[in-house]
Parts: sequence; C-alpha cells; structure tokens
Amino acid sequence: MHPSASFSATVRVRLDDTPGTFARFAAAVGEAGGSLGSIDLVRVERSSKVRDVVVLASNAAHLNDVVEGLRAGAGAEVIEVADRTFLMHAGGKLEVVGRVPIATRDDLSMAYTPGVARVSRAIADDPSLVWKLTSKQHMVAVVTDGSAVLGLGDIGPEAALPVMEGKAQLFKEFGGVDAFPICLSTQDPDEIVATVTAIAPGFGGINLEDIAAPRCFEIEERLRSTLDIPVFHDDQHGTAIVVLAALLNALRVVDKRLDEVKIVTTGCGAAGTAVTKILLGAGARHIVGCDEHGALYRGRSDLTHAKQAYAACTNPYDERGSADDVLSGADVFIGVSVAGAITRAGIERMAGQPVVFALANPRSEIEPEEIEDLAAVIATGRSDYPNQINNVLAFPGVFHGALSVRARAITGEMEVAAAGALASVIEHDQVSADYVIPSVLDRSVAPAISRAVAAAAVAAGVARDELPGSVVQAGVV
Amino acid sequence: MHPSASFSATVRVRLDDTPGTFARFAAAVGEAGGSLGSIDLVRVERSSKVRDVVVLASNAAHLNDVVEGLRAGAGAEVIEVADRTFLMHAGGKLEVVGRVPIATRDDLSMAYTPGVARVSRAIADDPSLVWKLTSKQHMVAVVTDGSAVLGLGDIGPEAALPVMEGKAQLFKEFGGVDAFPICLSTQDPDEIVATVTAIAPGFGGINLEDIAAPRCFEIEERLRSTLDIPVFHDDQHGTAIVVLAALLNALRVVDKRLDEVKIVTTGCGAAGTAVTKILLGAGARHIVGCDEHGALYRGRSDLTHAKQAYAACTNPYDERGSADDVLSGADVFIGVSVAGAITRAGIERMAGQPVVFALANPRSEIEPEEIEDLAAVIATGRSDYPNQINNVLAFPGVFHGALSVRARAITGEMEVAAAGALASVIEHDQVSADYVIPSVLDRSVAPAISRAVAAAAVAAGVARDELPGSVVQAGVV
Repeated sequence: MHPSASFSATVRVRLDDTPGTFARFAAAVGEAGGSLGSIDLVRVERSSKVRDVVVLASNAAHLNDVVEGLRAGAGAEVIEVADRTFLMHAGGKLEVVGRVPIATRDDLSMAYTPGVARVSRAIADDPSLVWKLTSKQHMVAVVTDGSAVLGLGDIGPEAALPVMEGKAQLFKEFGGVDAFPICLSTQDPDEIVATVTAIAPGFGGINLEDIAAPRCFEIEERLRSTLDIPVFHDDQHGTAIVVLAALLNALRVVDKRLDEVKIVTTGCGAAGTAVTKILLGAGARHIVGCDEHGALYRGRSDLTHAKQAYAACTNPYDERGSADDVLSGADVFIGVSVAGAITRAGIERMAGQPVVFALANPRSEIEPEEIEDLAAVIATGRSDYPNQINNVLAFPGVFHGALSVRARAITGEMEVAAAGALASVIEHDQVSADYVIPSVLDRSVAPAISRAVAAAAVAAGVARDELPGSVVQAGVV
Repeated sequence: MHPSASFSATVRVRLDDTPGTFARFAAAVGEAGGSLGSIDLVRVERSSKVRDVVVLASNAAHLNDVVEGLRAGAGAEVIEVADRTFLMHAGGKLEVVGRVPIATRDDLSMAYTPGVARVSRAIADDPSLVWKLTSKQHMVAVVTDGSAVLGLGDIGPEAALPVMEGKAQLFKEFGGVDAFPICLSTQDPDEIVATVTAIAPGFGGINLEDIAAPRCFEIEERLRSTLDIPVFHDDQHGTAIVVLAALLNALRVVDKRLDEVKIVTTGCGAAGTAVTKILLGAGARHIVGCDEHGALYRGRSDLTHAKQAYAACTNPYDERGSADDVLSGADVFIGVSVAGAITRAGIERMAGQPVVFALANPRSEIEPEEIEDLAAVIATGRSDYPNQINNVLAFPGVFHGALSVRARAITGEMEVAAAGALASVIEHDQVSADYVIPSVLDRSVAPAISRAVAAAAVAAGVARDELPGSVVQAGVV
C-alpha cells in the first residue's frame, strides 16, 4: 500500500538552523518509505525552528519505523508525535444536538414542559404523527454485537464503537440521515432480536452491522418479520448493491449481458450470499459459488443449511472442483472471501475479457498487479486502486430513500433499483475499465439512489407515504 | 395560568386597510383572554395587509377559543393558523452530527476504514480506551418505557419520544452532555433491565425517565447493581436534588435548621421516596410521609413493601391521621402528589413561618394564592410563579460532573453535594422568600453542580479518574 493519511502522524520537531537540516529530515522520511504531508511552523527559537510535520506511512508498524528513523536523525529533535487517526478519535466522533434552539424560557416551554405534553398527547391519539413530530423520521440505529468488525473479527461492542460512530458520520455526511450507534453487550440472537425490538419505537430504520454469519441471517430475518421499519444488514445488502452496480458497468465495458455471463464467487458468508441473491434478482442465471472447499453443488455432503439453500438456486450445471477449476470459461469473478482464494492460473482459464472483483480486505483475493495483463476490468475493496467497492456508496442513499417514504421495509426490488441508480451516476459514455463505480466522495450518488429507492418502495407497496418529499431534511410541515 | 408560548399560534391574517381594523383585532385577542406576541408584515396588498401575528393563550382549549374568536372578527380574514409548539416539533428536535469533518478522502480514511481499525484494535487491547477514543465519555441514554410521562400517564414509547428528545436537548444545552432517547416497546422490568444492559457499552451513563413506580425502583436497583456506569432515575433523584437545594435556602429565609424542623410530605411514589431519602441523607430527622390515606407509620396495615420501608425510617413519633392533621406544628410541607392533597386548614396548623413546596403539576397541591398570607416561602413546579422546582436545574450538571470523572455510579453523597452546590449558586445575602432556587436559564448552575458532583465522586471512590478535566468537552488528548 501507498503511504496514507490512515497511518500518519503529526511530528513536532526542533530543527537546527544549519544548512541542509530540513533536507536531511525529509530524506530520512523518504528513505524509510514514508511521505511528507503538510508542514507548519510552530515557533522560531534562537538557533532552531520548531515545526509540525505530517508524516504518512503505509501501515501502523511502518509509521512507527518512520518515526523512529526520524528520532535518530542528526540536527533534528523529535519533541512530540501525535498519531493523526487517534487524535481525530479523541473525544469521540459524534454529538447529539438540537435542531431547534433553547435559549429563552419560551423555547423551553415549547420544546419541553409544559408545551411538549400537547405533542405527546397528539401522538398518543394518532400514532402515525410520530413520523412527523419526532426525529424517528430521519433516525437510524446502527446496531452491532461486535462479532465481525471489519477484518478484526470478534472484538466486542466497545472496540466496535469507533467503527459505528464513523458509520453514523457517513450516514449524516452523505445521506443527510441521522444515525446512532447501538453496541450490544450480547451476541445471543434471541437477546439481540429482543433488544432491537425493544428500542425500535424511536427509529425509522435499523442498520445491522458487522454481525457474524450465520446468525446475522437469522437475526435479520426475525427482525424483518416483526418490525414495521426497514431492517438492513449492510454487510450483506450494502455490499450487494455496490457490487451489482459495478458489475452492470463492467459488463458495459466488455459488452456482455448479465443474463448470459458465467459468474464465479468465492465466499459464502453474509456478503457472498447477498451478492448472489441480488445478482439472481437482477437477472443473472449462471452463478457458481465456492467456499474454501470448492464449488457448492446440490448434494455436496458437507454443506450447512444456508449453503444447501445457496447451492439449490445456483450452479445449474453442477460444476465441481476448486474455485480455480470452476473459473474455467467464466466471464466474471467476484471474491468476497480471503487473500489467496484464487490464483493467476484460475484467471487464465476465464473466458475472454474477464471481469475480476477481488474484494477481500485488507488484502485482495489476488493482487491486481498479478493479473493486470489478463483482466479487462479489476475492482477491489481498497482505496489505493481504481474501482473501489465501498458500502459508503450505498447505505446513505438507500436509507434516505426508504425514510423519505417512511418505508416499512427494504425489498429486493429496492436494492436492485439502488444498484441501477448507482451504476447510472456514471454516464454510459464515461464508463471505462478503470471507472465502473463512482467515487465515494461523489455527492450526486446518494440523491440518485434515494430517488430510485423511494420510487421502488412505492411500487413495491411498502411506502407509508406515496410522495418522497422533504420530510427527512425539512424542518417544517 | 397566564397566556404562554406553550399555547401559542402564529396567525396569518389579512387585515383591511381601514381605520381601527388592527385595534379591533387586538381587542378581540384581549377579550378572549389571549395576549399578542410579535407581529410581522408578510405583504402589502391593494387595500389590505397580510400579517403574521403571534397569539398566546393559557391552555390548548383556550388557544382554540382565541383563534375562533379572531375568525369571527370584522375586517380580518384568518388565512392560516400554525401552532408554534407543533411547528417547533415538525421534523423532530434532534440530530446526530460528527464532531470531526469528513470532507476529503483522508478524513474518510481516518474516521472510517482503514484508519478506524487501529482505533478499534487499541480499544480491544485496552478496554479503558473506550473512555478516550469514543463518544461514550459524553453520551447518556435517556431511557423510558412511556408508562408515566409528565402528567399524561401511560402513553407509550412513541408518544414519550418528544419529551425524551426535549430532555436530550436540555442535556446538551445546559450540561454540554450528549444524550440520546431510547423509548422502549416493553414495560416488563426484566426486559427493560435486559435491554438497558445490552445497550450500555456505548453510553457513559443511563438516565431513566418517566417509568412508573414501583417498578422504577426495581429497575434502577437492578441496573445499578450490574452496570459500571451511573444509573439515575431523574424523576426520583433529580427532583430530590432540586427540592433539597430549595429547602436549604428556604430554611435560611426562616432561620431554621434542617436537623430540627418537622417536615410533612405528600406522595410516596418515585419522587416522594427520593425526596425523603435525600432529606434524611442531608440530616433531616423528623419527616412524616403521607399517601392518600394519610400518614405512613410503622404497623399501618395497608402498606406496600416500599411504603413499609419508608415508614421504618420516618415518622419517629408514630403520628397518625390525614396530611392536614399531621401538618400540625410542622415547619415544612413538601407535596409531590396531586392537587387537593392538603387544604388551607392544614397550613394554618403549621408552626410559625411555614415553608410550603406544593410541587404537583399541572395544578399544585394547594394554589399559592390560597395561602400566600400564611406561608413564609412558597415553591411550586410551575413556571408562572417564583421558585420553580424544575429538574432541568439538576440533571445536566449532575451527569456532566459524573462523566467528567468517568464515575461508576451516582451516590447519595454526590446528590447531596449537587443540592448544596445548586443552593449556593444564590449568594447567601441574595436568598429571599421569592428567590430560593436559581432560574432554569442560569448558566452558572450546571458548572457549579458538575464541580461538586465530580469532587464528591472522587471522595466516594466511584471516580475512574481523579481529576475532572476537559474530557467531556474537549476534542484533543
């Protein structure tokens, strides 16, 4: 990986006022493989200057190495090192603020007692008013049990909190949706379902996050059956939406049709299952899923219940063998598994103009460099390559759209509509091998998805309101 | 009650350009018992003007009457009526925002993946870091089951939400503490305890709110025994703190000592029990509590378990009879019950310079006007009399103080300290019969309480950090 802000420090350093000191300092950063970022002057001293220098590295260990290298340099004294990522997290990343001021006694008497009693009375008399007179209309719970957090695994609810806070920030920043992290001290499915059910009245939607498979399936299914608000496990459906969007554009690049291509996937956990489902829903007919033991086929003796169900609706020709084996003649590879799940030999067996989505994180199923001469389109989960498959592209717009019509659920049709809208953010004539998915910072993404999701919700009959309006954003009726 | 903003409307009205039209309009408001607030010009028409006029009334029905009276007026056409309290609630009162910007790819890579993974890893390795690197350090859950909301009773979680949102606003506005409403779809104590326990990892404190007695006692007790963060039922302890503070100053006015006065209370629910406990904790020795059947005494045959416990530590002379009866010779009356719980005859029996806290809402136990010739000090729960006993004076500062030292609990000593600090916000030489408690808008209240609570937490050994610092507010380590 290239040096990045994720692994950067602000180094406060005293540099002698002798010729070449800063050049030597900069060279030391470069020799250690780091990069220099912004440079500020803190103060001028008698025969030296104190500067704050941002130093970027490629990973955490590398950052330590770079800083240690600087400590050893001549003419430069490292005074203080502040890890920028930790600095950003000090104090936490979220706050809860009022949308209306409380500065005067009149404000207080309307927002709180005695005025608020009339608002509560009105909702008690007409429960649908909770969607107009409270924050439920724009509030999503981001719920995790901390069991499958990023690539870190089962790190528990406290350690998961920074991730959920970041997710809530992204909801607000990109979707204008308010989200609040709920980190659970239990990993028991019954207790998770009971807890989410208990806290649901205050929320317009539930975003399940980083809950390990297979219990994530059961939890989502049970909550969907009992709650009258959307329940959306982002690791499944968010990923699926972005993958489908990227694939729609990738197939434009290679001029193939979704209902005709052969698709091989590795990874049959939360993401892999959802990706397969959305592909089938969008018209794909020839998908072969693989786990670490190879292709899933009807009758394979070691399959769990979930994998039996997966095999039942995929692999129409009962192909067997390793992922590399079944890649033979495939048009598309989608990896949502681990580094090493396939090899270059597998890619070599694919049909002409192979599309390769190697989405494992932090290391892809196969390094892009290994196959760049073979693949027509490559996408990864990483920000340091083109075509990053990032859930941030989906969930803000999906929830905004669902909330804008007070949807009772997020259906498969809404997910396919979201993917289509996401793909179409790139004009057809702009789609290219290294541009099949918009940038995560593209501000036109969430509104486009929102509109498509809202329309699909209305069409699917799960919208409480027919017209997506200004409800989520607006402050007045 | 006087006309107030709580019951006000913005009336858009077209007024003919003929002499006396506005005067007649204003007179109509006055004749109906309403008041005029601000007046804006919307637009000038050929022979009329359109204005927005704020009209204030005394209660909801009265507001309707006033507006209907305007509709009937000559020369004035009512175009639109917007209830200001409902308008303020449209769209909800809260939002969740980021404390750090996410504008660039660098921001994204630090606040979210991949950078956030290091922060999560650090917390997994050292769980105490959750108090530094997440919003837990300044985040409080405001939890209700909607069973005893304001004076409205059991209106359910959705209808309770506007109250909890208002509470969260007050936390932020007056205490700089972030608070989030959790409205539960269950009223079962076991399920409430399980739910709050499950969501606790993300919070630095739990504010229980508007949960009916007696189950509020059990729920609080069980949560206090299992959680390592403060659990504070505001209806109990918040009220108790403000009452004690007001009483300390009221006793200054009449020059009596807390350990010598006889105190009679009516109401032995959540608030009454907590008030009695804090008074005993602060040194009171002669308290007689009454329910609707009269004084609680040891051996009274109809007492619940909770009331037996109450009787066991009060009423040292086993007084019997109605509240009016036992008021004989009392120095202080504290009502946290219902209108009519005592009469003027009872107040007449009190010792010289009686202190009367008639805190029932919306109507006091006895109207202040009935006894103003008898009582030396009167306090109520209402904003339209001097000496309003309002919980807003306590909870923001109490939680700020507890969070500032990452307290494991809020102890009785911390509550007494909070009351002392609240009382002392009024300089001793400024205390007077109509100024025994600071204004709810006094910005010096929360900091004063916070300092006292933090110090008391350290003294009681429940502080995680010795020094109350800038942790709650500050953004950098």
